Amino acid sequence: MPECTGRPLVISMGDVCGIGPEVVAAQWLGALPPQAVVVGSVAVMQRALTTLVKAGHRAEGVEVQALEALKMQPHLPLAAPQQRSILWVWEPPGLPDGLAHLPCGQIDAKAGAAAALCVREAARLVLSGWARAMVTAPLHKEALAAAGEAFPGHTELLQALATPPGQPLVPVRMMLANPELKTVLVSIHVSLRQAIEAVTLGNVLQTIRITHHSLLRMGLSQPRIAVAGLNPHAGEGGLFGDEELHTIGPAIQAARAEGIDASGPWAPDTVFMRARHSADHPGEFDAVVAMYHDQGLIPVKYLGVADGVNVTLGLPFVRTSPDHGTAFDLAGTGRADPSSLAQAMEMALALSAR
Amino acid sequence: MPECTGRPLVISMGDVCGIGPEVVAAQWLGALPPQAVVVGSVAVMQRALTTLVKAGHRAEGVEVQALEALKMQPHLPLAAPQQRSILWVWEPPGLPDGLAHLPCGQIDAKAGAAAALCVREAARLVLSGWARAMVTAPLHKEALAAAGEAFPGHTELLQALATPPGQPLVPVRMMLANPELKTVLVSIHVSLRQAIEAVTLGNVLQTIRITHHSLLRMGLSQPRIAVAGLNPHAGEGGLFGDEELHTIGPAIQAARAEGIDASGPWAPDTVFMRARHSADHPGEFDAVVAMYHDQGLIPVKYLGVADGVNVTLGLPFVRTSPDHGTAFDLAGTGRADPSSLAQAMEMALALSAR
Repeated sequence: MPECTGRPLVISMGDVCGIGPEVVAAQWLGALPPQAVVVGSVAVMQRALTTLVKAGHRAEGVEVQALEALKMQPHLPLAAPQQRSILWVWEPPGLPDGLAHLPCGQIDAKAGAAAALCVREAARLVLSGWARAMVTAPLHKEALAAAGEAFPGHTELLQALATPPGQPLVPVRMMLANPELKTVLVSIHVSLRQAIEAVTLGNVLQTIRITHHSLLRMGLSQPRIAVAGLNPHAGEGGLFGDEELHTIGPAIQAARAEGIDASGPWAPDTVFMRARHSADHPGEFDAVVAMYHDQGLIPVKYLGVADGVNVTLGLPFVRTSPDHGTAFDLAGTGRADPSSLAQAMEMALALSAR
Repeated sequence: MPECTGRPLVISMGDVCGIGPEVVAAQWLGALPPQAVVVGSVAVMQRALTTLVKAGHRAEGVEVQALEALKMQPHLPLAAPQQRSILWVWEPPGLPDGLAHLPCGQIDAKAGAAAALCVREAARLVLSGWARAMVTAPLHKEALAAAGEAFPGHTELLQALATPPGQPLVPVRMMLANPELKTVLVSIHVSLRQAIEAVTLGNVLQTIRITHHSLLRMGLSQPRIAVAGLNPHAGEGGLFGDEELHTIGPAIQAARAEGIDASGPWAPDTVFMRARHSADHPGEFDAVVAMYHDQGLIPVKYLGVADGVNVTLGLPFVRTSPDHGTAFDLAGTGRADPSSLAQAMEMALALSAR
């Protein structure tokens, strides 16, 4: 095997009953094979490639190969158009048998167990420095649960893997980004009532800090962070709620005292419009800290989810994922759109460039 | 005075210290003068026209004229390009003197009193059938308060004017619409905590009903109404909040039992994307019922507010307004963008066509 040309990305294949393997395999159909290794099953990736071919995609010259040992890093050339493109797969020890025979589009405990194993292995590869960053294809929360996994999803699992034993969990935040807008959420999967309770000075300040440091890592020298209010018109001076006065405002002041260019609290209904970058509208901010899940995700998804990338901020390594789920209704058809995964891979490369 | 060519729109001029008079006057700069009468001050509208000319706009042939008596409806011709265009103004009895000498960009009780008087008069004209619909230029809430007005804004004032004495207030809802998206809000200017409390079966059902009947009046024969959830992922089956199960879902069922094509509760972060109408993306729904102010206004404002129109649904007459405020920082410069008011006028014409 030739010499390594640089540390690869690792991509966990996701739930084998979902669209994960297909959208991963689709990344190898272009002229330039990705500098990436799939952590998953050779047979599943082979099946995914066959699915794409049956759906009319051209995959001549793409070959799925198992990586035999991790000490040999794969050769990941920038292929010439006629060159054969190798989709390297690292099969983690203990991967269940028969994954490629599971029918698409249904919840399966074996698929859930395999998906979790691949995420753990990918995290190990990036934590050890073998890989430069990790990208995760979608898994299915119910399949994870069926496999007896204690973690409800990627974020919680990675947070646990990144925390040294006996230490408090490393604080992480979800960023959703597309070419026009980056938004970072104070809380995610809790009720709106609970989300309001999570708007504390500590949580908001920590979100601003994590956002700031992540934007620095993305190469921005003085990131401009807008902080949204919680209430309509950011409370209109206390008229409609006082979280802006007592919690969000003081968190912004504390961040500014640390030298962070944070501003707000801004009226939620216009701050995302103001932050939006487009050809005819340079955004006023580099990212918006949103007070709850839908405040941030409604605008970032409004123009479509194909380009959306989910980035877990706060981990000691780079992790991105596409902004879609397993799409059981599409799995096995070869018709799933691989562009969000492509964007996630591009973002992972950019974030791990330094 | 020549014969009337149809019932006019009435436009209340708004706060004279804000951009209202300018954006109203700007509607007369095009080749086709609007079929509209301004309810306001002749001197203020003359000043606004002068401001526009100083800012470089061409206003040759536009002349501000007072309407002398209401029984004579104005002649509102579809002007030929060379024809003189008359900006008709109806001055309501009791209008304060000296309005055109108030400096732009500041809160003034006299301006607040005049703005309220013009709104009342415009409502009277449309309630009496003299006008076909009303459009309101922005007023300033603090100027209203300084004038001793009991109503915090347009909506509450119009709601009171439309309610017969001794009756409970007619229920109204705010719709914000642009060419891509229509969204109707269950509540508006309350804190997010109070907005959650306002998500009751009665309020949600009433919002769906008002939306349905308004869309019928807009000419849709079977409007498709999406109802957003309150919580992330619409609660994910009760995992993150149960309002979808106990309140919003039953309200949708009740609406469906009345023959209304309401669906949901949908995940808030994707329902607006799904409802969005664009050249390459026909929307799945005709309007979205949003559970609170920012849920609905973030997406409708995301692409810019220039085309946004505010429509008060539930009134016994058509009332629209531009989706911006008095913009004191721009008032008097002639640089305010009149396109939202133009859209509001177009929407008012469309809504009062039948």
